[in-house]
This record gives sequence, structure tokens and C-alpha cells, in this order.
Amino acid sequence: MQLTTNHLLGIKSLLPKDISIILSTAQQFKDVLQRPIKKVPSLRDVTIVNLFYENSTRTRISFELAQKRLSADTINFAASASSVSKGETLLDTVNNILSMKVDMVVMRHSASGAPHFLAKHLPNIAIVNAGDGINEHPTQALLDAFSIIEHYGTLEGKKVLLIGDIMHSRVALSNIYLLKKMGAEVMVSGPPTLIPKYIQQAFDIQVEYDLQKALQWCDVANVLRIQLERQNQVLFSSLREYNLSYGVSQKRLSGIDKEILIMHPGPINRGVEIDSDVADSKQSVILKQVENGVAVRMAVLYLLSGKKELNV
Amino acid sequence: MQLTTNHLLGIKSLLPKDISIILSTAQQFKDVLQRPIKKVPSLRDVTIVNLFYENSTRTRISFELAQKRLSADTINFAASASSVSKGETLLDTVNNILSMKVDMVVMRHSASGAPHFLAKHLPNIAIVNAGDGINEHPTQALLDAFSIIEHYGTLEGKKVLLIGDIMHSRVALSNIYLLKKMGAEVMVSGPPTLIPKYIQQAFDIQVEYDLQKALQWCDVANVLRIQLERQNQVLFSSLREYNLSYGVSQKRLSGIDKEILIMHPGPINRGVEIDSDVADSKQSVILKQVENGVAVRMAVLYLLSGKKELNV
Amino acid sequence: MQLTTNHLLGIKSLLPKDISIILSTAQQFKDVLQRPIKKVPSLRDVTIVNLFYENSTRTRISFELAQKRLSADTINFAASASSVSKGETLLDTVNNILSMKVDMVVMRHSASGAPHFLAKHLPNIAIVNAGDGINEHPTQALLDAFSIIEHYGTLEGKKVLLIGDIMHSRVALSNIYLLKKMGAEVMVSGPPTLIPKYIQQAFDIQVEYDLQKALQWCDVANVLRIQLERQNQVLFSSLREYNLSYGVSQKRLSGIDKEILIMHPGPINRGVEIDSDVADSKQSVILKQVENGVAVRMAVLYLLSGKKELNV
Repeated sequence: MQLTTNHLLGIKSLLPKDISIILSTAQQFKDVLQRPIKKVPSLRDVTIVNLFYENSTRTRISFELAQKRLSADTINFAASASSVSKGETLLDTVNNILSMKVDMVVMRHSASGAPHFLAKHLPNIAIVNAGDGINEHPTQALLDAFSIIEHYGTLEGKKVLLIGDIMHSRVALSNIYLLKKMGAEVMVSGPPTLIPKYIQQAFDIQVEYDLQKALQWCDVANVLRIQLERQNQVLFSSLREYNLSYGVSQKRLSGIDKEILIMHPGPINRGVEIDSDVADSKQSVILKQVENGVAVRMAVLYLLSGKKELNV
Repeated sequence: MQLTTNHLLGIKSLLPKDISIILSTAQQFKDVLQRPIKKVPSLRDVTIVNLFYENSTRTRISFELAQKRLSADTINFAASASSVSKGETLLDTVNNILSMKVDMVVMRHSASGAPHFLAKHLPNIAIVNAGDGINEHPTQALLDAFSIIEHYGTLEGKKVLLIGDIMHSRVALSNIYLLKKMGAEVMVSGPPTLIPKYIQQAFDIQVEYDLQKALQWCDVANVLRIQLERQNQVLFSSLREYNLSYGVSQKRLSGIDKEILIMHPGPINRGVEIDSDVADSKQSVILKQVENGVAVRMAVLYLLSGKKELNV
Repeated sequence: MQLTTNHLLGIKSLLPKDISIILSTAQQFKDVLQRPIKKVPSLRDVTIVNLFYENSTRTRISFELAQKRLSADTINFAASASSVSKGETLLDTVNNILSMKVDMVVMRHSASGAPHFLAKHLPNIAIVNAGDGINEHPTQALLDAFSIIEHYGTLEGKKVLLIGDIMHSRVALSNIYLLKKMGAEVMVSGPPTLIPKYIQQAFDIQVEYDLQKALQWCDVANVLRIQLERQNQVLFSSLREYNLSYGVSQKRLSGIDKEILIMHPGPINRGVEIDSDVADSKQSVILKQVENGVAVRMAVLYLLSGKKELNV
């Protein structure tokens, strides 16, 4: 089983077959994570650099754990502690790091397209996009897909609702690409100011501004994080108002006639886009998503390493 | 030999038996640290997250070294490079990290009680308090105890003096709990503004504002660090005056008729709470305390891991 | 093969024999880095602390990779996340770290002489200078020498030109020491404000303010980085003017009648001290220098560890 790509830059460029391979490999690693001994020698002697030009807790730790569980050697590089301020170009920085004989690069960057730029200039090194600007966050979409399949057995025909700031969310974009490729139906809901005008035609998805109707439609509600700094930017007036119109509450859920799966990429703003009683309910798989994230990232790193033996 | 607790939150909640087990296990690890090869496989395949919400050099490095000597995998998380600023709750952050299948958490936090809060909500994960606000710093008290026993053979009946800012010191509080539990006599000395009024009755210890008399009384003087930012807060007027009244100098020590053991948790303010000739004298075990800290932390991590084989 | 020193503080104090041993050992490690499996057990059970009191990307990562390739355990310590602000002395900080039974210290510090000060007080621990103020950067000079030998087979009689801010460059000083010790001829070129007056006599090297003549003379041009913050300090007027007078461009190189080797310690300011077409040309070994840096640092760490078996 081999991917048709040497990088994971985004879901957009993956084939459905690639997605299936990643998800089934992730299942094998998830089994490993249930064992008392969670470490496998799969990437022994592989060196991976985590290049994080944007702050991140969970994604960085999740990748680092995935690497350590695979027995890879890990080097962390955070932009603030770096020579970024010295004015070197991104390509020079990465070229330098690669000259040190690093095998893979995991990269988060505030500029959309930064990992694609690298991959174009460095075809021989595996590059994993850990989030680029407002473009894509492919491992998040893969772990979301894994979590839906874990619950429903398939993505095919499932109705998935994305709620919130669709306009600026790389999680939303990667999810839309993935879900459409794998045969799910997609709807987005949120304030009109946060939903791109073209989106319905561009992606063949539905838009529903009334959250109650949208919840009634879906099997899965993936609640996106509200970037607190966007309030008072005319995009929406206040967190309180956002919560009243688009916050997912137990009251709203009790108004629909079925139990839907609740997801959130984290970190949660309790009382803003999701209420505590929903986030901590039985319907919520938010913490399972985090667990699945490590398995999915192990799968991606393993598959891109070129190693032939899973060794689990 | 097993502890009666799943966490190390503070000395307050330990039994004397627990303290003895930790200290005797620490002695075994101290022996390991004298070998040319200081690494043991005791915690192979155990993953530990160091969650430091407060700056720290020595404590963080000491824990990290202890973990690496035990062959554990280590993930570092410092608050400044984190999503703390994104407004997530402490419990959500830790829950997320735990979902990644981490085995233990070592935590430093500026809020007193933060690790206790976690332990209450996460009973199945071992939590080690590496200092919480002005409450406790249990591994420091354990390494102080280890250092006293290393010199005198026992804590029983030993007269231990704590000098300085008793009011705000988590080191002082953890030491008082431990020393009283293990049969030592305790006295505190320092400016009246830095010694809590209730302390004598509350802990059955002595208070002596005259440092010279206090030094004459004790077998061990544990000199606490003065937080430089506290001067000009009416708590004490200046570092110079503090040094004159409560600084431990060779002149003072030559005025007493015996040789006492000098300890300090570090980092030292030379010329403030302790003079250089004392800090660097033969009586001082300040650097031994640091060495013992690694052994004590190895013991704590090993004992809380649930592993049955010491493997040294 | 053993060095005559227990530390690597600078090139100034090395014998030519020491330099030869380091460079030939580095060749063995360079061979290792060409293998699919680049990790060797040479420093298994050795613990190394990287004490970086000054920001650095490439040097820190290069040392960390060298350590991991040698199977050493690594602890990173960056000044900003440390107790430096708490006012502890450098010696106390390092003494404390050493009490934790660390085997080696790699140190970068903004104060010239900081590693020498440590070595004087801590004779029993191997200290590696990773750059001290405007004094030395010995591993950079060693990797530069390695890269020249890799191309020309020898340093003996080679004509090496250093271009730029000779006054403030620790790379320049270490290179001058090394090249003179190993029988190379050295010339410096740059704006008169950036070249120390005494340098010709002090080191028996040549000074040539006309870059074109200097380039015609040399076999190797080592282009130093311009510290952007030095412009408008009367040392030179603007980056644009610097580039016109001392920037190494393809146009300049086409004016000389031979192909010279182009080196740069990085990070590069493209369009300032070096133009992109030169930096990326076939003549440039800039990325090879980075690769050689890991091999040279592996050699230094191995040789200072006191281990007797190379184990590659």
C-alpha cells in the first residue's frame, strides 16, 4: 500500500485511494495505542524536523508524540526562537536544515501555500502540512474522518455539518475536500459574514444559515473554533450574540429528533461556539478526535517515510 | 514497596511510610547516578509530559534528566509557547494531552492547587506537582530531606531552621510538613513581615526573629531564596538591609559554637540571603541538593508509574 | 588519537595536530551521514546540555542533530526560558546543571570569554564553545576548513579570502587562527570601518580593500554575513551601498580568470553580501558547509567525550 504522493500538502491533491490507505493504516496504529507498550520501531533512524512558524500546542505535541511512538528522532524548531528575524528566506532556512540530512519536515506556517512552495523546491524530502494560513490542515481533516468512520462505519452518504467561521478556517476547507471525495454530504452553517459567497457552487455543498434546521439535517456536527480576535471586526458583533445564534447548546440539540455526533477540532471556547454540557456529553467525540490524531499522524509519517515494513 | 497515593500533589497528604519509600528508592537511584552509565530502562515506553506554566530552569531540567535517565519519553510544554493565550481551560488542555495517551504529567503552575484540581478530575493519570503557587513544592522538600539524611543519617530529632520569606515560600511549607511528619524539630526565622502570624500554633514549630539565636539552635540551616521583586513592597526595605539582618554570612556562623549544615533550594542570590563564602564552604551541601534532586525525582516518577521492577 | 585539550574553547588554543585529528574524525562521521542509517551508538549514555544564551537556529539544530546521531541524550536550555532573569551567576547556573551529572556542555553566549571562564572553574567537564560574543566560533572554522579540504584536498598553501565585517566576526577570527595554523594564506577584504587596524601585523595576513583584486588573488572566498543592525551605525551607510562595494556578484566573479570556491557561514542576506546567482551557483559549497557542520560537531563531541571506541 503506497500513496500516490511524496508529501501531504493538502486534501485537495489526494486521491480517494490515498485517503483510504491513510485511514486504514491509522487504524493499525490506533490498535498499537491501546497496548500497554505504545512504541513501535517503524521509523527508527528517521529524523524529522518540526518547523512551527505559528504557535500551536496540540498539533505540535500530537506530531511529536506520533514521532516518538514511531521511534523517530525529533528536532523542534519554533519560529520565535529562530533566525527568522534575521531575515533569511524560508527556502534558505529549510535548505539548510535539509543539508543536515533530515528525512522529513512537518511544517506549520501562517502563509497559505508555504509547504507547497517548499515541496516544489525540495521534491526529494517528505513535507507534511500541519496547517498553512487559511488554506488547509489536512491531518485534522483525516482525523475527523477517522473519528466519523469509527462511529458510523463509513463516510459514504453521511451528512456532515460544519458550523462557524467557514471563511477563515483551514479545518473547514480540508474537511470539505475530504468529505466530498469520500462520498459524504456536506452542509455549512454560520453567520453570513463568515461564509464565503461562492462556496455552494464551488464545492457542491449546502449552506443553511438557520442552525436549528442544519442540526436537524445532519448526522455529524463539526463545530469550528471561533477566533476570539475576530469579534468587533464587523464579522460578528460579540461572543454573547454569536453564542445565542450559532452556539451549540443542549437546548438546541434537544429540539431535534435524533442523536448526532458532536466534533470540535479544539481548543474549545466553552460558552461561545459550544456549551459545556454538549462538549462533555456522551454524543461528543472531541477527546477521541485528539486520540485519533496521534494514530492518523503516525500513519501519515510512516506512509511518507518510504519504509516498507509497518513493524507494529 | 508501593505508595499509598497515585499522585505527588504535596507532602501534606503523604504518610510517613510514603516518604520513607521515596527516600529509600531515591538512594538506589543515587547509586545509579554514581556509575559511568547512568541510564536505566525502568520507564522504557512510558511517556511523560512536563507542563510548565511558570518559568523554571533547574526544576524542569532536573525532571527532564530524571526522565531520560529512566529511559522515559519526554514531551515539554511551556506555557508561553502554548495555547494558554487562546483561552482554553486548564482541564481542557490537560484532557487533550491525556487523550494522546500520555502516562504521567509533571506540572508547575502559578496557581496554588492547580495540580490538585487536575488530580480530582483525572484520577487515572499520575500527576506530579513541580511547584504550585505559594502552596507546595514536594520534590524540593524530599530532596532536602534526602540531603539531611545523607549527612546526619536520620531526620528524627534533627533541628532544622528555615530562614527567609516563610510567608510566600512553597519550599518552606513542603519542608515544614515533611520535617514534622518525620520527627524533626523545626524553627523559622526571618523578618516579621515575612512570617505568617499563625504559623507557630498551626504547625507546632518555633519562631525566632533573632537569626543569631536561631543559628545557635539548629543542626541544619535551610536558607530560602529572596524573591528580588518583593523588595520595596513594604515587606522588607532593601536587599542591603535584608542581608544585614537575615543574610547568612561567615561572620555569623563563626559566632556559633558548632558546624551546621547549610542548604539552599537555589537559585542563590549571593550577598543577599547568603554570602558567597558560606555558599561555597565545606558546610554547604547546595550542589549536593541539586544532584540528589535528580535521584529523588527518578524515585517519584518510578514509584508513581506503577511499574513493578526497579530494573536498576 | 586524542586531543591535547579537554575543551573546545577556540581555535587559538588548538595545536595543528588537534585540528588534524578533528578533521579526520569528521571524515569518518561524514561517511556515516551518507548511509541510510545515520545513527551510531558512540555516545550512548552520555548526557549533553546545550546552553544557548543567544538565539541560534542552525548552530543549535546542528549540534542537536550531531548529538542525536551519536545516540547521546540532549537537554536544551535557552536563556529566555530560564532563570537568567532571576539574577543567578553564570557559574552558579552551570554548576547546578553539572551537579545533575551532565557530561558535556555546549555553550553559546553573547559575552566573549564566557566558555573560557566556565572551563577555568570546571576543569572536569568538557565545554564546547558554540560562539562567544565577538571572540571565536571554533566549530564554524573547523567545518569551513573541512569544506575547503573536501574540495582542494589540503589547506596548505591555499589562498583564502574573508570578506565583510572582520571587526565583529567570531567566524573570521576562528578562521584566521585555523588557516594560519594549517599553512593557508589569508587575506581580508571589506570596508575600512569593518577591518581592525592592527590585523595585518597581528596575524600575518593581507588586507585588500579592493574586492575585485582580492577575488583575483584567492582560491576560496568566504563571504561573511552582514549584521543588518550595523547599518546606519556609521560603520557602513546602507545595504545597497554595501552590496555595490563588497557584495559578491556573478558580474564580479566573471571579471576574474579562474573559478574560486564560494563559502558563507549563513544565514545568507541575498542581495546584500552575496547575490542569489552566486549563492546558488556550482561554485558555492554553502549547503555542503551545513552538512559538514554536523560531521565536524559529531567529531568534536566524540573526541571530547573521552570515549575510546569510535563505534561507527
